[in-house]
Amino acid sequence: MEAGSGVTAMAERKKRVLITGAAGRIGSELAQRLRDRYELRLHFHRTIPEALRDFDHVVADIADFGAIAPALRDVDAVVHLAADPSPYATWQSVLHSNIIGTYNVFEAARLGGARKIVFASTNHVMGMYDRDQQWPVYSHQPVRPDSLYGVSKAFGETLGRYYADRYGISVICLRIGWFLPEPRDEISRWMWLSPRDCAQVVWRAIESELDFGIFYAISANSRRHWDITDTIEKLGYRPEDDAERYFGPE
Amino acid sequence: MEAGSGVTAMAERKKRVLITGAAGRIGSELAQRLRDRYELRLHFHRTIPEALRDFDHVVADIADFGAIAPALRDVDAVVHLAADPSPYATWQSVLHSNIIGTYNVFEAARLGGARKIVFASTNHVMGMYDRDQQWPVYSHQPVRPDSLYGVSKAFGETLGRYYADRYGISVICLRIGWFLPEPRDEISRWMWLSPRDCAQVVWRAIESELDFGIFYAISANSRRHWDITDTIEKLGYRPEDDAERYFGPE
Repeated sequence: MEAGSGVTAMAERKKRVLITGAAGRIGSELAQRLRDRYELRLHFHRTIPEALRDFDHVVADIADFGAIAPALRDVDAVVHLAADPSPYATWQSVLHSNIIGTYNVFEAARLGGARKIVFASTNHVMGMYDRDQQWPVYSHQPVRPDSLYGVSKAFGETLGRYYADRYGISVICLRIGWFLPEPRDEISRWMWLSPRDCAQVVWRAIESELDFGIFYAISANSRRHWDITDTIEKLGYRPEDDAERYFGPE
Repeated sequence: MEAGSGVTAMAERKKRVLITGAAGRIGSELAQRLRDRYELRLHFHRTIPEALRDFDHVVADIADFGAIAPALRDVDAVVHLAADPSPYATWQSVLHSNIIGTYNVFEAARLGGARKIVFASTNHVMGMYDRDQQWPVYSHQPVRPDSLYGVSKAFGETLGRYYADRYGISVICLRIGWFLPEPRDEISRWMWLSPRDCAQVVWRAIESELDFGIFYAISANSRRHWDITDTIEKLGYRPEDDAERYFGPE
């Protein structure tokens, strides 16, 4: 056997990636767009969408550590989307799903041997800058959440920083804008994230060798208010879409 | 009645201040040092220390909203110290006392009409800079907690930012160093917070008109690694102690 053949074999093996919350709009889109690139396992909270039945999958409440832990065994990476995604979510709901659930997923990922966590964060972590139109917003500015939802996602970012520093797991937090098939109004005109740009930024995050990072994830919208320079520079993101193409000249 | 006499009366009325976790080392010291300045109410988790029996007090688990809420009725300010203060605390413990408990105290403070929250944070929010000796550390740098305890305190800071932005409550977060009667070793030599400096920084925070701030709270130790310039500039803190006075010449 030639020296190095084992290394080649490892490099060619597809990474095993768990997507939590895969029944959601983003998760189900990612499942289809990343299925060739990775060996996917999907996590669902309750119901299994018909279109995703043929994927390897698990059903569990992420707030129940014993239920979710087996899903994280022997994965290389986890894309953690499962959450209450509403900016109007109550404290009880974000406590259950976004705080306890996120801790459980990160801890199970560590115990299961994952080397990468991609955490779906949100612009709502910084929403008070937007409320006050203090633009542009850069990802390194102090957090100013606009909701308990935003607070709970900031918690996930901080927990990710700890897991990166303490355990050497690469953690990439993506502050996802407005994920839609197409932009549809003035707000999505600047905060849109297209499906293909979403898929790209997630695989760039999976492949990134950074130890930790927090990045805005939106398309290259001409009217954006949030900086994506570091997403481009540090994560290698090359957005292909711009919401402006969907609107006529003024 | 002269115009303005009501205003004068209000200005002369002592502020009503609740100290949570007042049985702790810091809380019991603050109770004695601030009793003349404010109308104090003390919160204890379980037992009432003998020395503090004559104070107005309540006993409650802060993780139980219904139990703690009455303590926050009609206070002007809360100094929130109650927490599991150990850097080695488990997730279950920080979840209970530091995350759920802090949410309950902030929310009850808001409902009770408080205009000020002084939140006892910690250097452990930034402990990974210290581990890596990336000094000096400034309070505005991105958080890098060294423990789940540090993560839980970063959560409290973020929640405070939200309460300030959303509800107009002034929230001052103090990253308290090592509170000791006297410094005793090389570490306390740079991170010491003396009892009288602690009392001062807390009343400065209560009196501050800032909408929000995060500040290191240590004495003016000649060998400090953490910046207190903004504590001095923005909070008006005038530290009187320096650990160096307790050590001989080298």
